[in-house]
Amino acid sequence: MTGRKMSKPDSGSFMSEFELIARLTRDLATNERVVVGAGDDCAVLDFGLPHVHFLFKTDSLVEGVHCLASDAPERIGHKVIARNLSDVAAMGGSPETALVTLGLPDAWTEEAVEGIYRGLNATAKRFGVAVVGGEITASRERLWISVALIGTVASGKAVLRSGARPGDAIFVTGALGGSSAGRHLDFEPRVREGKWLADRFSIGAMIDLSDGLAGDLRHVLSASGVGGEVAASMIPISPDARRKSGPGSGSKTPLSAALSDGEDFELLFTVRPSDAVKLKDDWKREFPDLKLSCIGKITAAPGLFIRDRNGVRSLAENGYSHLS
Amino acid sequence: MTGRKMSKPDSGSFMSEFELIARLTRDLATNERVVVGAGDDCAVLDFGLPHVHFLFKTDSLVEGVHCLASDAPERIGHKVIARNLSDVAAMGGSPETALVTLGLPDAWTEEAVEGIYRGLNATAKRFGVAVVGGEITASRERLWISVALIGTVASGKAVLRSGARPGDAIFVTGALGGSSAGRHLDFEPRVREGKWLADRFSIGAMIDLSDGLAGDLRHVLSASGVGGEVAASMIPISPDARRKSGPGSGSKTPLSAALSDGEDFELLFTVRPSDAVKLKDDWKREFPDLKLSCIGKITAAPGLFIRDRNGVRSLAENGYSHLS
Repeated sequence: MTGRKMSKPDSGSFMSEFELIARLTRDLATNERVVVGAGDDCAVLDFGLPHVHFLFKTDSLVEGVHCLASDAPERIGHKVIARNLSDVAAMGGSPETALVTLGLPDAWTEEAVEGIYRGLNATAKRFGVAVVGGEITASRERLWISVALIGTVASGKAVLRSGARPGDAIFVTGALGGSSAGRHLDFEPRVREGKWLADRFSIGAMIDLSDGLAGDLRHVLSASGVGGEVAASMIPISPDARRKSGPGSGSKTPLSAALSDGEDFELLFTVRPSDAVKLKDDWKREFPDLKLSCIGKITAAPGLFIRDRNGVRSLAENGYSHLS
Repeated sequence: MTGRKMSKPDSGSFMSEFELIARLTRDLATNERVVVGAGDDCAVLDFGLPHVHFLFKTDSLVEGVHCLASDAPERIGHKVIARNLSDVAAMGGSPETALVTLGLPDAWTEEAVEGIYRGLNATAKRFGVAVVGGEITASRERLWISVALIGTVASGKAVLRSGARPGDAIFVTGALGGSSAGRHLDFEPRVREGKWLADRFSIGAMIDLSDGLAGDLRHVLSASGVGGEVAASMIPISPDARRKSGPGSGSKTPLSAALSDGEDFELLFTVRPSDAVKLKDDWKREFPDLKLSCIGKITAAPGLFIRDRNGVRSLAENGYSHLS
């Protein structure tokens, strides 16, 4: 092969993954089924079923990137389907049907593969998702798993990244940062929460936090053509980020970890400011065990800013790149 | 990790891939959408759309197993989606929407990735399939691609592997064997042919030949609870198999290559013997450039037999295992 090699995130060009995807998806084949194509948490499809649109998504997991060979197979199985469930949650949809593709290295045992399926299957059952087959293929050096998921959502009700409006309040669920300490394998996809939000409130934009708060909020701002300002004191920092116990947290401050660590799989969404108080009250009744934080607001002017005791500065933190 | 390692096909236990899959898919999560789950060319789903069922399938491709780094990226892109199209063809369905997941090794260039997308996209367009996004992730040592495809088929009309009836004539399209010489990268998925067959004839069972004629016919016989007998003189042998030019053909006879080489991606199907003559006549008018061969018949007694000038013997050839 000849030509330019991939510029790697650790060489300082963080955006290469997203730039490459943007270039690859510029002129994709399309047809009359497509309501929303590449670029959101899920594709949205219309097959003519009254009142129902379909969601379509794949997510994968690579040993050494998203999990280790020493992780419990059941947790790996949970994680790979939960990543997809989180994407359906971010559209306000219901997950329905999954397929599993497994690239199996020489070193993995049948018992480990059965463990992966056990974990995946248990989570699928818990969320009412049917696993309707898949494929196993040889992969020599490292395990990879790809899960494809079909979901449904009420027609015209899929919550996109592009719907944030100036003035909207920005909310996040849960607490952020340091998920590499273990939560990245065991997180609970916010399926019930995402659907509840989409059914009851006029949600502007929604995304699940896989690349880190700063990176994913930038996706929303960019897709919506708006800016944002967050308050440092309102960012919910997880105990893991405070302990800095996870590999990858390195020398980050807890706030910086909450802003930039990947794989939180919490929901970030925006609502009209007039709905914000009612939403917080209703949320507390419906989901008393899951924290909901208003972290800032959407602005008409572009850019992403953070306000702390020293004033307002441009947010420097980036998110996590899956090509790292 | 502890436990028993995967038994490898080249250690003589050819069936391990299928045995493992059978064990893994024994107790999968299910729901009321599932018409046909794991075990056929595609899953069949009912989402309540009148007269329409959905087909759902993933197929993957691994560098060093299904393609080489030296293969043209455009051909790799074609192959990975064409494998899925071939599965939809084998159900008599229409392909609709695809997602692409790419595991990208360090050594691959952006130009090569764009070439893969170019090939994939061109084939998707030609078959009216929308590509609605995907994912790129790091994969260090070797390229892998997984494509997920949604298709549609008239309710109750999906052609399964399990419908072969004693007395049925067995047909195959095209010519078989030696596809590793190049055809495995450039094959034409038989989408129009599969749908034409399902729309016009009472097809018993249908499958696309990915594991080799002997292996895939065994899948049909096993799923249908029947046996089969093929005539050696009727097996369509490709020029590639006769030339034995492909790596992997090795010391096989041309007939043995046609029986056991993988990745032909032709259709094998069964019909009532009373329909066989009309089918051959209609086929010639509709698809004058694609050979159609009646190679044998389905029997009530189990087993797979081959008849040649020396009489009838049990067919020894196996198919191709994707774990090899």
